[in-house]
Amino acid sequence: MDSNGVDEQQMKLVQGAAGYVLEDVPHLSDYILDLPTYPNPLQSNPAYSVVRQYFVDEDDTVPQKIVVHKDSPRGTHFRRAGPRQKVYFKPADVRACIVTCGGLCPGLNTVIREIVCGLHYMYGVTEVLGVNCGFSGFYSKNTVTLTPKEVSDIHKRGGTMLGTSRGGHDTSKIVDNIQDREINQVYIIGGDGTQKGASAIYKEIRRRGLKVAVAGIPKTIDNDIPVIDKSFGFDTAVEEAQRAINAAHVEATSVENGIGLVKLMGRYSGFIAMYATLASRDVDCCLIPESPFYLEGKGGLYEFIAKRLRENGHMVIVVAEGAGQDLVAESVEQQDASGNKLLKDVGLWMSLKIKEHFAKQRKMDITLKYIDPTYMIRAIPANASDNVYSTLLAQSAVHGAMAGYTGFISGLVNGRHTYIPFNRITEKQNKVVITDRMWARMLSSTNQPSFMNPPNGATEGAN
Amino acid sequence: MDSNGVDEQQMKLVQGAAGYVLEDVPHLSDYILDLPTYPNPLQSNPAYSVVRQYFVDEDDTVPQKIVVHKDSPRGTHFRRAGPRQKVYFKPADVRACIVTCGGLCPGLNTVIREIVCGLHYMYGVTEVLGVNCGFSGFYSKNTVTLTPKEVSDIHKRGGTMLGTSRGGHDTSKIVDNIQDREINQVYIIGGDGTQKGASAIYKEIRRRGLKVAVAGIPKTIDNDIPVIDKSFGFDTAVEEAQRAINAAHVEATSVENGIGLVKLMGRYSGFIAMYATLASRDVDCCLIPESPFYLEGKGGLYEFIAKRLRENGHMVIVVAEGAGQDLVAESVEQQDASGNKLLKDVGLWMSLKIKEHFAKQRKMDITLKYIDPTYMIRAIPANASDNVYSTLLAQSAVHGAMAGYTGFISGLVNGRHTYIPFNRITEKQNKVVITDRMWARMLSSTNQPSFMNPPNGATEGAN
Amino acid sequence: MDSNGVDEQQMKLVQGAAGYVLEDVPHLSDYILDLPTYPNPLQSNPAYSVVRQYFVDEDDTVPQKIVVHKDSPRGTHFRRAGPRQKVYFKPADVRACIVTCGGLCPGLNTVIREIVCGLHYMYGVTEVLGVNCGFSGFYSKNTVTLTPKEVSDIHKRGGTMLGTSRGGHDTSKIVDNIQDREINQVYIIGGDGTQKGASAIYKEIRRRGLKVAVAGIPKTIDNDIPVIDKSFGFDTAVEEAQRAINAAHVEATSVENGIGLVKLMGRYSGFIAMYATLASRDVDCCLIPESPFYLEGKGGLYEFIAKRLRENGHMVIVVAEGAGQDLVAESVEQQDASGNKLLKDVGLWMSLKIKEHFAKQRKMDITLKYIDPTYMIRAIPANASDNVYSTLLAQSAVHGAMAGYTGFISGLVNGRHTYIPFNRITEKQNKVVITDRMWARMLSSTNQPSFMNPPNGATEGAN
Amino acid sequence: MDSNGVDEQQMKLVQGAAGYVLEDVPHLSDYILDLPTYPNPLQSNPAYSVVRQYFVDEDDTVPQKIVVHKDSPRGTHFRRAGPRQKVYFKPADVRACIVTCGGLCPGLNTVIREIVCGLHYMYGVTEVLGVNCGFSGFYSKNTVTLTPKEVSDIHKRGGTMLGTSRGGHDTSKIVDNIQDREINQVYIIGGDGTQKGASAIYKEIRRRGLKVAVAGIPKTIDNDIPVIDKSFGFDTAVEEAQRAINAAHVEATSVENGIGLVKLMGRYSGFIAMYATLASRDVDCCLIPESPFYLEGKGGLYEFIAKRLRENGHMVIVVAEGAGQDLVAESVEQQDASGNKLLKDVGLWMSLKIKEHFAKQRKMDITLKYIDPTYMIRAIPANASDNVYSTLLAQSAVHGAMAGYTGFISGLVNGRHTYIPFNRITEKQNKVVITDRMWARMLSSTNQPSFMNPPNGATEGAN
Repeated sequence: MDSNGVDEQQMKLVQGAAGYVLEDVPHLSDYILDLPTYPNPLQSNPAYSVVRQYFVDEDDTVPQKIVVHKDSPRGTHFRRAGPRQKVYFKPADVRACIVTCGGLCPGLNTVIREIVCGLHYMYGVTEVLGVNCGFSGFYSKNTVTLTPKEVSDIHKRGGTMLGTSRGGHDTSKIVDNIQDREINQVYIIGGDGTQKGASAIYKEIRRRGLKVAVAGIPKTIDNDIPVIDKSFGFDTAVEEAQRAINAAHVEATSVENGIGLVKLMGRYSGFIAMYATLASRDVDCCLIPESPFYLEGKGGLYEFIAKRLRENGHMVIVVAEGAGQDLVAESVEQQDASGNKLLKDVGLWMSLKIKEHFAKQRKMDITLKYIDPTYMIRAIPANASDNVYSTLLAQSAVHGAMAGYTGFISGLVNGRHTYIPFNRITEKQNKVVITDRMWARMLSSTNQPSFMNPPNGATEGAN
Repeated sequence: MDSNGVDEQQMKLVQGAAGYVLEDVPHLSDYILDLPTYPNPLQSNPAYSVVRQYFVDEDDTVPQKIVVHKDSPRGTHFRRAGPRQKVYFKPADVRACIVTCGGLCPGLNTVIREIVCGLHYMYGVTEVLGVNCGFSGFYSKNTVTLTPKEVSDIHKRGGTMLGTSRGGHDTSKIVDNIQDREINQVYIIGGDGTQKGASAIYKEIRRRGLKVAVAGIPKTIDNDIPVIDKSFGFDTAVEEAQRAINAAHVEATSVENGIGLVKLMGRYSGFIAMYATLASRDVDCCLIPESPFYLEGKGGLYEFIAKRLRENGHMVIVVAEGAGQDLVAESVEQQDASGNKLLKDVGLWMSLKIKEHFAKQRKMDITLKYIDPTYMIRAIPANASDNVYSTLLAQSAVHGAMAGYTGFISGLVNGRHTYIPFNRITEKQNKVVITDRMWARMLSSTNQPSFMNPPNGATEGAN
Repeated sequence: MDSNGVDEQQMKLVQGAAGYVLEDVPHLSDYILDLPTYPNPLQSNPAYSVVRQYFVDEDDTVPQKIVVHKDSPRGTHFRRAGPRQKVYFKPADVRACIVTCGGLCPGLNTVIREIVCGLHYMYGVTEVLGVNCGFSGFYSKNTVTLTPKEVSDIHKRGGTMLGTSRGGHDTSKIVDNIQDREINQVYIIGGDGTQKGASAIYKEIRRRGLKVAVAGIPKTIDNDIPVIDKSFGFDTAVEEAQRAINAAHVEATSVENGIGLVKLMGRYSGFIAMYATLASRDVDCCLIPESPFYLEGKGGLYEFIAKRLRENGHMVIVVAEGAGQDLVAESVEQQDASGNKLLKDVGLWMSLKIKEHFAKQRKMDITLKYIDPTYMIRAIPANASDNVYSTLLAQSAVHGAMAGYTGFISGLVNGRHTYIPFNRITEKQNKVVITDRMWARMLSSTNQPSFMNPPNGATEGAN
Repeated sequence: MDSNGVDEQQMKLVQGAAGYVLEDVPHLSDYILDLPTYPNPLQSNPAYSVVRQYFVDEDDTVPQKIVVHKDSPRGTHFRRAGPRQKVYFKPADVRACIVTCGGLCPGLNTVIREIVCGLHYMYGVTEVLGVNCGFSGFYSKNTVTLTPKEVSDIHKRGGTMLGTSRGGHDTSKIVDNIQDREINQVYIIGGDGTQKGASAIYKEIRRRGLKVAVAGIPKTIDNDIPVIDKSFGFDTAVEEAQRAINAAHVEATSVENGIGLVKLMGRYSGFIAMYATLASRDVDCCLIPESPFYLEGKGGLYEFIAKRLRENGHMVIVVAEGAGQDLVAESVEQQDASGNKLLKDVGLWMSLKIKEHFAKQRKMDITLKYIDPTYMIRAIPANASDNVYSTLLAQSAVHGAMAGYTGFISGLVNGRHTYIPFNRITEKQNKVVITDRMWARMLSSTNQPSFMNPPNGATEGAN
C-alpha cells in the first residue's frame, strides 16, 4: 500500500495538473527488469499500412467523469486501450490460454473467437489453448488447442465452447499449471468473483516473477460491474426479455383481472429489469434489488395490484431475481418442507403469495401467469451490437497483453476502450442508483408506488 | 338414440354400398319445418364469378380412413365443408356472435377476424357481436360490436381480443341470452370441454325449436382433439418450442454434466413434446402422458441420465406437462406445506427430484437448468401456416352456418375441410399412440429407454 | 408401353373392384430374378420392439382423390410408404449416395441428415457418400463420406451442405460412376427437371440390370410438383415471405400514395404468392403466372392502383416471379441495351413501368418501394414443421430403397406418405387452379380485379 | 457572425480556463426579454419526489473529445440535456407539434410516442399535434391530435405513424402556419437536410420574435450525422442486416464459385456496411463510399474475387449504396436505354459487371446472388436498445424545449445526452475515417485489398 492506501501492485496512481489522476494498470516491466521490446508486427500488416493513426499514443487516457463544469477538477482517468508501437512478446514465443467462468452470457463465444483470431491474424500468434470448464479446468482437465478455423463460426452459437463452472479454485495450483505449460498470456472471462480470482492469479504470478500477462474481460449479463459503460451481452439480454414481457402482456390482457409476472436476471442489480421495462412500455410495476418493497397494507404491492386491475383489468409485473430477498427469506425460513426450496425463487414465491392473497380476500378473481425466461435469455447468441462490442473488448485485451500490460481488464469507459485495474471493478458492484434520473424515468413510465412508506405493522418488507 | 346407439340429434348416419357410412351433422331443417332458402350471395360476388367450381356439391364427403386395401370397406365419411348453392339465412337477418373459451392458442384472433370478415365480405352480414371472457360472458358481460375495421390487424397479435375464461357456465341462461339478443348464429371457439358446452347449447336451442345455428371451431394447442388432422396453433407451438429446446441444449453443453429440462404443453397428449423433439434433434429423452416412466432402478430415468451424461457429458429432457402425473401425485401427497403446491408442476418436481437424487448419490455433480416456456409459446401470434389454416376453418364454419347446418364443428380431415358432429370430437381425446410408428420414430431419434420393465421394488412409477 | 399407353418400366397398374386403380412403383425384383430377402433389422431395434403395428402392410395404399360421393368409383391409389417386414439389401452391403440439385430450399440439409441417420440408426448402414455440386458432381468431383456425426447439426443451417448445381448432365457417365463406385442406393433430391434426370438414371440402371435402387425426394420451394400435398420448405418460405410483405406495408403506409411491391418465388406456379397473401392480409393485389393480367386501360392494373390509392392512400402488390412474362417479353425485346437484362425480372420491370406511368400521367405522385426477398427466403433453415416433414420424407425414401423399390419418389398424398412413380410427377406441373375455391378466397381477400376483360386496344397482356 | 466567424444566432461560445470551450445552444431569452419562468412541474411528480439529484445543474457540460493527455487543453463542450428547475412554459399554455421527414428509420414511432407521453406525463401538456407527411404537411395537410392513448402501441410498429416525405418546403409558409395555429413548441425529426430546414425555421421564428421553441431530433439510419455517438435506429439496422449477410453466405457456400452480394444502406457513409461486416464475420469484402475501389487490373476487385474463389470456393461482398458512385456514373452515362436507370443502383450494376466479367473471361463459372434488404431493414420496429435510446432522446428534447432552449438538437455525446446547436450537425457529415482503427479492424477481418494502387490504365477509380 502506498500513502494513499492504494495497493501499488494493483494500481499505479499518476497525478497531473488541475486535479488530473491516472489510475494506471500494472506492466510486466514493473517487476521484471530489462525486458526486451519488439516492433509491433501490425506495422507490416497490409490492413494497417493504410491507417496512419493506428497506434495508440502512450499518453492517451480517458476520464471517468465527463459531466463537467467550466472549472471542474479533471479527476480520474484510465489508460486508453489499443495497439502500441512496441510489444513485449515475440509472437513466436507467445503461448496464450483462455478460460471462461460463471454463468452463460451472450457474447462469450465471440470473445473467445476474437482472442484466438486477434492473436493469430493481428500478431501471428499460433499457440492458443482453451481451458475447459472454468478455473478448476486448469488442473483437472485437458486443454484444447484453439485455431481460427475451429472458432470461425462459434459466435453464431450461444453458450461457451470452452464450458464453464462456478465456485472455488486453487490459485497456487493454477499458477503451477501456467508455469508447467509455459503459458505466458492468460485471458480470463468472467464476472466480479472471477476477476477477484484473476487478480489473485496475477499477484501470485508477480510474486513468482513470471513473465506472464494476465488480462480479464469482464462478463456479467446483469451489468453489475462498475466503472465500465455496460457489459457485453446486456443489450442482447434486454432485447430477448421483450419476448417474455410481450407474452405476459398478451396473457394478462386475454382474461379478466389477468396478471403477467416476469422474472428477469439481476441478483444484485436491476438493470435488465429496468431497461427491459423502459424498452417495452407494457410493464405496470418493476421490482429490483436496489429498491425495497412490501406487499401488505397501504402503499404496498397488493394494494397497487388491486388498483391497477380495477382501472385497466390487467397488469404486467417485472421482478429482478434479487428483488425482495429479505421478504422471501423471512417468509420461507418459517417452513422447511422440500418444496419450499423452490420458494427461494422470488418469482415462484411472488406468484404463490399474490394468488393466496387474492384467494383469501375473495373480492377479485385474478389469473396470474408466471414466466421465467432466464435460461432462454442467457443461452442465445449475441446480437450484432454485442458481437461488435465483444470483438473490440477481445482485441483490446490482446493489444494490452502484447504490450506487456498485466493485471488489467479491458472495458468501455464513456464509449472509449480502456485498461482498468482489477481492484476498480471488484471493490464494489454497479447498481441502479434509485436516486438518479434513470430510475425516475422508469417510475414515471410505470406509475408504480415508491414503496417509501411501509406501514407500521408491516413486519414483512421493512427493509 | 337410434338402433345403433347413436344420438340422432347429434349425428345422422347414412349408409351406402361397400360399407360406406356418412356421419352427417344436424341441420336446422331437421327440426324446423318449411324453412325458406335463398340463393347464396356469393354467386354475385365478383371474386367468385370467375370460379366455375365454387360451390360444394351437396353429396361431397370425405373418408376418415384413407389407408386402404384393394377390397377394403369404405368406412366412415364426413360431410365436406364449403359454400352451398342455397343458404338458410337472409344476410340482412343474420345476427351472429362469437365467443372464445379456455386457454390461449396462437390463431384465436385469426379465427375471430375471419368469422367477422367472412360473414361481412362473403355474405354481406353486418351484425356480429363479440362475447367477452368466455361462456359466462353471455350473461355477465356486455357484448362488443365487431366490424372488419376493428379486427383487421388482430391476427398479428397473440391472445384473444375477446378475452377468455375457463370453467362452468349455465346453458339455460346462455340460451335465454341468445334468444333475448335475437342472435341466430353462434360461433364457439374452444377445446373439448367447450365443445361439450356448445353441444349442450345446441341441444337446448333445438329443444326450444329456435332457428339458431351453432358452429364450433375446435381449439387446442395440445392437438388432443380426435378425428381432425391437427388443431390450429399447433404448428406455431412446435416452432416456438424450438427456442426453449435450443436454450436447454446450449445450457447443457456449456457445463460438465449439464442437464437441460424443458416442460412443454400437453396435459393429456404429448404431441407438442413429440413433434418438438423430432424437429429439434437435440433431445435425449421425451416424456409424455401416454407413455409411463419411472425414476429409480434398472431401466429407470436416473439410470438413463447417468448413462447419457457419462457418454456425452450433457443431455436434454423434454417433459409434457401431463407426463408422470401418478408419480407426482404419489410424491406430493405425502407432504402438505404450501410450497409443495408448486410441485404439482411436473417440471419443477422433476428438477427437484433429479437434483436430490444426484446430490444424494455423490457420484456425479450435475447442473440442471429448467425451462418452462409455456406462456411464451401460447401467447405468440400464429405463424403463416396457422394463419391460413385458421382462416379456412373460420370460413368453413361461416359457410356451414349460412347453409343451415348446426351442431357441428369445422375440421380438417385428411387435408379436406369437413363438418363433424360434436359427439365425435368430445367422446374421446386424441392421444399419441405409443404402439404406432410416429412414437417409434421419436424413440429412435432419442434412443431413450422404453420404461417397459419397472423393477419390482419400484414403489414410484409402477403405473 | 402397355395397352393403356403406360410405360411399364415407370409405373405398374393394378386394377381392383369398384374402379380401384393402384399406380404402383417399380421394384428391383421386376427385372432381377431370385433376389434374396432379409428380415428387416428394425425388428430387433429396441425403439421398435414396443411398437406392434410398426411394419406397413404390403397391401396398404392411399387414394389420390378423397372427396367422394356415396357411389363414387374408388379411383387412383398409391403404395403406402414405410418399413417392410423384409428388405432386399443386407445392411453391410449397402453403399448409398446422396445428391442435391437445383436451387436452394429450406429443408435440404434436413433431408440429407435424415437419409444418413435413418440408414445408420434404423438399418445399420455405414457407407453413405455425398456427391458434391449436383448431378455433374458424380463424375467431376470427389465424394465426401457422410456419417451421423458430420450431419448432426446441419438441419439448423440453410442451404445444402453438399452443394448444388443446375443444368445438364450425362446419364451414362453417372451410371458408369455408380457402377465404378459400387453404389447400390441412389438418393436424388431435386425438382421436376432433376426427377426427370433421376428417371433416366433409373432406366439406364434397369437397362444394365444393376441391383441399384433409385429414390427421389421431390424438392421445389414453389410447390409446383403435382400429386403431392405440398413440397418441403414451402411452409418456411411462406412464413419468411411475411417479413417482406410487412416491410412493404410499413413503407407504403408511411408516405402519401405509397406502393409496396414484393416479388416472391414462383416461376410457373403462384402458390407462395397466394398463400403469403392469404396469411398476411395486408396485400391489395396478388399477381401469379396462372392468372394473366394487363396494365393499361379499363380493368387494368394501373386503373386499380389509382383507385386503391385514392381510397386508402397506400397499397401492397405481390407478384410471383413468373407472372406477366408475356408482358415482360414484349416490352423488353424492343430494346437491347445491357441494363435491360435486368428488366427480365418482372419485379424490376413492374417498378419501372408503374413509376413511368404515374410520372407521365402527372395526376398522382406515387412512391414505390420494391422488395425482392428471394434469396433471403431460400437460404433460411427449415422451420419446425418442415423439419419434421423433411425427416419423414427421407425416412420413407430409405424404407423404400431398403425394401427394394426403385424408380420412385417419396411424397405426401392426403396426409399419408406414399411411393409415387417418377412419371406422375414429371409429366405436368402443379399449378394454382384459378377456377378453384382457393383462388377465389384469395381474390376475395384482396378485392383485386379479375383482369378478365382486356380492352380491345390492349396490345399488351392480351394473353 | 462574431469575431470567431460563428453565427451567434446558432451557437453561443463560452470560454473557460485550460482551453475550455462551451458551444452553447440558443435560448428564447436570448431574443425575448423578461420571459417569466415557472417551477418545473416534475417537482411534484411522485415518480421524481424520491429522486434527489433529478434536475440537471445549469452548469453541467459534456466534453466532445475525451481521449486526453495529462496536460491536454479541455476543448469543446456541449450543454448537458435534462430537466431544469425552472421552465419557460406554463404547461397549460403549451401547444406542441411533431413532424417527421425523410426516409424511414427504426425508432421513429418511439420518438413520436415519447414526445407525446413525455409532454403529457412529465409536464402535464395536453395539446400535441401531429403534422402529416413531412414539412409540406404544415400547410398542405390537416394535423392530427396526439394523445398518450393513441400512441401507446406505436413503438411496436415500423415506419412513422405521421407519414413522411422528402424534399423542399417553404419556410415562410411553415412559420405562418405555426403562428396561425398558435404552436409554441416544434419537434422536428429528420436527417441533416431536415435539420437545415429546422434551422431556417428557427431563424425565421427568431426574426419574428416569436416565443416558439424549435427542437430537432436527428434521424439517420446511415449514422452520418456528426458529433453524436450514433443515431437511433442504427443498431437495429445493423442487426437486421445480418439476415441478408447470412443468406448471402448460405447461397454462396451452396454452389461452386458462389458469390453473395449484399447492398446495405449508406449513401455517403459506410457505417452500416462496416459494422454489419464486423458483426457477421462472413464477409470477404466490404465496399463503402469513403474508400474508393476499382474493378479491373492488378489490385482490383475482379482479381480479388478470382483469388478468393480459388482459395475458398465462395465469397460474400457487402457494398454500401453510395460506394463506387463514380464508377457507376461513368459506366451508365454512356448508355441511355430505360433499363439503365436501374444501373444507378450500385448493387444491380455490380451484379451485372461481375457476371459479365467472368462470362467474358471464360475461366471460372461463377454464380452470383444479389440481395437488397434495404426496405426490409428500414421498415422494422426498433429493437430494445434503440427503443430506450429513442425514448431518452425524445425526453431530452422535451426537457430542453420546456426549459426555453431553442434551435437545438438533442444528441448523445460520449454516452451523455446533450443539446447541440444545429450548425454543428449540418455543417458536415459523419463519415467512416479510413485512416482510423475501426476501418483497419474491418480490413483485418476481411483481408480485402486496400485498392490503393489503381493501375495506370484505370481512368476510373483513381479518385
